[in-house]
Amino acid sequence: MTRRTLAQALAAGFAMRLAAQAEDDSAGLAPPPGYTVAEMGGLKHFVPNKPEQIAMLIYPGMTALDLIGPQQAFGYMMGAKVNLIWKTLDPVVTDTGVKILPTATFHDTHEPDVLFVPGGGKGTIDLMSDSEVLAFLAEQGKTARWVTSVCSGSLVLGAAGLLRGYRATSHWAVRDVLPNLGAQLANGRIVEDRNRITAGGVTAGIDFGLYLAGKLRGPDYGRALELMLEYDPHPPFHSGTPADAPTNVRDMATSMYAPLVKFAQASADAARARWAKA
Amino acid sequence: MTRRTLAQALAAGFAMRLAAQAEDDSAGLAPPPGYTVAEMGGLKHFVPNKPEQIAMLIYPGMTALDLIGPQQAFGYMMGAKVNLIWKTLDPVVTDTGVKILPTATFHDTHEPDVLFVPGGGKGTIDLMSDSEVLAFLAEQGKTARWVTSVCSGSLVLGAAGLLRGYRATSHWAVRDVLPNLGAQLANGRIVEDRNRITAGGVTAGIDFGLYLAGKLRGPDYGRALELMLEYDPHPPFHSGTPADAPTNVRDMATSMYAPLVKFAQASADAARARWAKA
Repeated sequence: MTRRTLAQALAAGFAMRLAAQAEDDSAGLAPPPGYTVAEMGGLKHFVPNKPEQIAMLIYPGMTALDLIGPQQAFGYMMGAKVNLIWKTLDPVVTDTGVKILPTATFHDTHEPDVLFVPGGGKGTIDLMSDSEVLAFLAEQGKTARWVTSVCSGSLVLGAAGLLRGYRATSHWAVRDVLPNLGAQLANGRIVEDRNRITAGGVTAGIDFGLYLAGKLRGPDYGRALELMLEYDPHPPFHSGTPADAPTNVRDMATSMYAPLVKFAQASADAARARWAKA
Repeated sequence: MTRRTLAQALAAGFAMRLAAQAEDDSAGLAPPPGYTVAEMGGLKHFVPNKPEQIAMLIYPGMTALDLIGPQQAFGYMMGAKVNLIWKTLDPVVTDTGVKILPTATFHDTHEPDVLFVPGGGKGTIDLMSDSEVLAFLAEQGKTARWVTSVCSGSLVLGAAGLLRGYRATSHWAVRDVLPNLGAQLANGRIVEDRNRITAGGVTAGIDFGLYLAGKLRGPDYGRALELMLEYDPHPPFHSGTPADAPTNVRDMATSMYAPLVKFAQASADAARARWAKA
């Protein structure tokens, strides 16, 4: 055997091992109902038979980053129909003054595959007693494959009755309201219980968006999205949870959120009173 | 000494130690020019004598998350004037179809403290030969205290001549274009060289926004913002850099970005040709 044929044999063996590995990986790829496995640019991934309909609620006073984190991931899912939905097509103004235009109204939204609610401050708690919003979410929540939220958005799902008997989470400052809405407070940045996925505060939306994209399109698609978003975070202050933050920072933030928590607890009480009457 | 007076003495000693610590911390707080140190809810932080003017460019084809990551941090800085600026007040459509309204035009923007450019895809590279945008950035870059970008936004700063002789970074896929714009390619998710701060791809904007907020308002303010945004990231796929991603994922993403890189290199060549003529 010459040096050249040895090298060729080794290369051929290596290629065969790679091919075998790829087959092993794809053997583990069980597509969700309504999806098939396909290959694109060397990646095996799930392709939907019908494009996913993803309905993301937007509203005045919401936190823009709660929405845009997952929207950036869903928006990069080729073929998915991602809508930002509200009562009207007028611009909504977020808690930091960003004006975003809805792309569809509740009236245009029919049985989306994914229903999503972002969080925010007072504007979010206001939705907990907005009968039009709550009726819309309760109705769409019956048929959606995934009922999801980021941050205090879970309080709105909760007020719509969609988290009763489910494990769920929220922004750390308002998590304790969840049991008052019939949910079981769970630890974790992303909490999945049957078809409910709730995520923690604000930036948890990026983790959530990539996680759900990976469930819908397969793990390699999720990995590709994570690479496109260069999601290799380095929080500059190591202060992202109440446990990690210094005492003075945690105390300031907790006292700042106290009126909001009180308002949210009262809104949860009111939601439960409505359920008792119904 | 009774048990009670012992407890009181211990408590007093503890309070004194806490006070001494606080003094140590604040001794290290050197406010930037135009700022003073103040206390709010137990946090020592910098207060601007005049509200910071933060001008964030928005444009068609940009990546929404590049903008909204830092905007969420800047928008929570009490008193700061944060504007989303473009040629007109018409909505811009991002690369995933989000319609965002500018809050001010170039004409309304005068000597902002912070000048910021987000990245994106083809729309971003188009700006590298947009004479109106480049002239505006070059002019504002002369007086801004901080000239900043996220993702491929650094290529636009570079085409405006603002990174010549500076260390800088960009999205991993297009970083190699920077030397062609006279910049020195540097490693790091956030690269600071004198008053230029450039950040890596997309999600690096959150790290950048918190980092700059901490420079402007002091470290405790940065910590409080990080806690409000619950920035305790857990990337679900550990695939956020080319080094971390599996080979097939990296290869697919690299080949997907190849035409964009080619377009960006040609645009950098054209920028250098314009400088040679000027």
